[in-house]
Order: sequence, then C-alpha cells, then structure tokens
Amino acid sequence: MRKHITGFSNPTVKYLRSLRDKKHRKRSGQFLVEGLRLLEDARASSRVPQTLVMAEGRAHPLLERLEADVMAAGGDVIETTADILSKITGKENAQAVAGVFDEWDTGLARLDRSAAPIWLVAQALRDPGNLGTMLRTCDAVGAGGLILIDDCADPFSAEAVRASMGALFTVGLAQARWDEFLPWLRGGEGQLVAASLRDAVPYRGAAYQAPCFILVGNESQGLPEGYEAACDLRVTMPMKGRADSLNAAVAGAVLAYEVLAAVAP
Amino acid sequence: MRKHITGFSNPTVKYLRSLRDKKHRKRSGQFLVEGLRLLEDARASSRVPQTLVMAEGRAHPLLERLEADVMAAGGDVIETTADILSKITGKENAQAVAGVFDEWDTGLARLDRSAAPIWLVAQALRDPGNLGTMLRTCDAVGAGGLILIDDCADPFSAEAVRASMGALFTVGLAQARWDEFLPWLRGGEGQLVAASLRDAVPYRGAAYQAPCFILVGNESQGLPEGYEAACDLRVTMPMKGRADSLNAAVAGAVLAYEVLAAVAP
Repeated sequence: MRKHITGFSNPTVKYLRSLRDKKHRKRSGQFLVEGLRLLEDARASSRVPQTLVMAEGRAHPLLERLEADVMAAGGDVIETTADILSKITGKENAQAVAGVFDEWDTGLARLDRSAAPIWLVAQALRDPGNLGTMLRTCDAVGAGGLILIDDCADPFSAEAVRASMGALFTVGLAQARWDEFLPWLRGGEGQLVAASLRDAVPYRGAAYQAPCFILVGNESQGLPEGYEAACDLRVTMPMKGRADSLNAAVAGAVLAYEVLAAVAP
Repeated sequence: MRKHITGFSNPTVKYLRSLRDKKHRKRSGQFLVEGLRLLEDARASSRVPQTLVMAEGRAHPLLERLEADVMAAGGDVIETTADILSKITGKENAQAVAGVFDEWDTGLARLDRSAAPIWLVAQALRDPGNLGTMLRTCDAVGAGGLILIDDCADPFSAEAVRASMGALFTVGLAQARWDEFLPWLRGGEGQLVAASLRDAVPYRGAAYQAPCFILVGNESQGLPEGYEAACDLRVTMPMKGRADSLNAAVAGAVLAYEVLAAVAP
C-alpha cells in the first residue's frame, strides 16, 4: 500500500524510529536498512523490505524498481519528508530511503558447514563496526559466514549493517552461546583455530584444515582461557611493537586470508 | 598548578570541550586524550599532558604518578565533577580522567624511512576508527608509521586516538598532499605498493622490497587511477564473494602482514 506521512507523531514514524533501539528490534523482529545501495544489495539477495520509506519527490530507476517489488510483495511504500526521515534514522543527513526487513533465524542449525572451507567465529564482539567488517571479510574470503558467540553487538544494528557493506545479506550468520556452539561444532567436521599468545604456533604455515573455524575474542578481554583450550590449533601472529593484540576484525581478516591460502588456494 | 572547577560555564571547561571539534583543535594545536590507559600509553612514550582533568575524589596509584609528572612539567591538574567531565568529552559515561596534549609536527621531513621496513600510507581515509586501527596495525607489524595523504580524518580526534590503542604515541605519523608525498618518496629508497584490481599481481609472493610503502585508498572511492599508476607494484587479494573490496584498515593489515613475512621474516 502507498502512504504519505507528514506528521512527526505518526505511529508509523514512532515505530520506525524505535528500530534504532536493540530492545525494540528484538521485540518486533524487524530492523531498518538505510540507503539505496544497501537496499540494492538486499534485493540482489532476494530480500525485499516489508516497508519502504522514502523522501518525497525522489526519483531513481533503482528506487522505482524497489517500490514495484515492495508493492508486488504486498508491502507498504511510505513517502515522507526529509526531516521525518532524519528523525527516523537519527542522522542529520539521512539517506533518502530506508527499508524495514524482518530479522531472520540465526540458529546454528541453519548453517551448512560443508558449504564453505572457512568460517569466522567471534566471541563477545562488542563493536558493531567490527562485526560488520567481519561479515564483509567473510564475503571476501568466501567464508560460509560469521558465528557470534555469547553477548555480541547486534548484527541487525544500523552500524553493523552499514559496515558489512551488504554482506549481512549474502553470508551466513548465527548466534549461539559457547555451550551450544561447541557441541554443534564437535558434532561434525571442523577445526577450531584461535589467535592466541598461549601455547601457540606461528600463524603462517600452520596446519589449517577445512572447514576451518577461526575464533576471535572480545576487543578488550580476548578469549577466555577455557575457550582457547578447547581449540584444535592456537596460532600467533607477529607483534613487533608495544601492544600485544590487533583490532579484532583485523586479526580475523589476517588469519582468514592465511587460512584461505592454505585450504582453498 | 592545581585547580578545582565546579561551574559548567568556566572558560577552561568551554575550552576543553571545544577540543572535540577539529576546527578548534587545529586552531589551538591541542587535543584531548580520554582514559587512564591511553594516558599511561602516552607516558610510556614520554608524552606528558599540559593539563590533566580528573573527576573529584578519584585515587589510583597510576593517576597519582601522572599528576606528579604533570605538576613537575609545570602543567595544570584540574579536579572537577563527573558531570563536567561528561560535558567535556561528550560521553554519558565519561572516563574519570582526560589529558590535554600539544599536537606534534606531522611533516614528512620528520620521518626516517630507513628506520623501518614497512610503512602504511592512507589516501583520503575518512573514518577515524579505520585511521586509529591502521596506527595500531603499524605498531603490530613494526611499521615506521602511517602517512596520511590528501584529506583524511583527523588523527588527533578522540575516536582515532582511542582506536589506535595508544599507537598514536609510538608510531610515526605524517600528513601530506600527494604532490608532496610522491617527490619525497622518490627522493630516496622506497617501493610503493597498492592494493588494486587493475594490472595487478597476486599479493602473495609478490616482489616486496623494504622499505615498502603500502598505499590504501579511500573507503568508498578507492585510489585515484593516477595514484595507482605511480606505484611500483600493484597487488590484488582474492575476493571470492560479491564485493570487490575489503574494509580499508583490513586491506592494509592483510597486506602489511604479507609484506612483513617477505621483508622482515
């Protein structure tokens, strides 16, 4: 259905705005994707928004195609003012379009470990930018996806979606507690590898095996010792300076490219 | 000198708060560093703040040592309320301490290219988090430092300093226009390497030579064609997915670790 909204206090505006908040996203099971580029990425992965919100008077061939898709799927197309769009997204220079999507099932059971030689696993990853960057790295190395362990940032937050550059729509995503993940992993083939300083071998030339699950720890705490101990392989990267760790998304990517060269050259 | 400030409209509070803004940082030549951990990193690199601002009633052995250093160097120690600290830093849960430092000279002339086998060079890097992450990577791979080309994010912004995890204080930093950088580079030894899709060789096993300058382009535009053409070596990383690029800080790090293995194993 096509609607036109001009009032800030319209309930739809309030609802869309509430999706900036994780609590409301979890309650409604929906999230907001901002910008035509990301919406096109979603479309390329056959994901059509339930609702499309756009600034009045915008015309773009891609936008028209998107509108047609939304209408065909029985969704709503809402035209509104630039000010209201800014209010919804919380950004002064809001994108001219945003879409509301249903979140999808992120249970481990949906992953097919045989589908890819590499998987990224992040534990208690708190920064949504790092999370999105790791999704993007998954896409680049042909990883099956990202498995989020314990309390991580929300992969459906605007910042994570943006940092993923659309990879949220193309790579696998799962969320699990450690004590669900480990039995799942051990229920099939899979090598668990951690970047570690304890009892580790050099990351270059280590004996990686597909499917290889690369485990990266929390930004400030690193991995709990017990998690490291449960790994099949602990590898270390040169740290030539004063610090003893890399940014989490960087560590994951350096390892992922090394594993890629070993298992899928 | 030791001071106690309780008023929001105190000129010192206004000044400190103004340092959140790049324009004011450039005018005053000073920047703000938040948190005891970063201040300790600075101290380890013999950088003492001009002014230390701390929440009333905080006691910590490291903080006492820092206070003593600041007083010995003729600086100011300001005690204030948690609310005023929040106002200064713009964060609800402000760190209990912040320090004001003089920015330093970031001219190319200060760099000694023979000091390290690897350098990172970022062109038009807009995200301060990426910038700080690249400084952190410089520390990790033993790079001489980061050279910022054209209009980049401000390395002295709070977000860049925080993402650097203290590497701002330990690795080299320069800022230059491309037409200053290239003659400087060509005035001595140095191989310029770009991650590129055009006319590139695989990044693994490429003929890297120290000192190797790894050039990474803007987050959304990549490198201008002319900049790529000026490089001695163009390398490409596998991109197995839908996207054709990595996050800029990730690309720089994956390349830097590959170069490290080649030139300083």
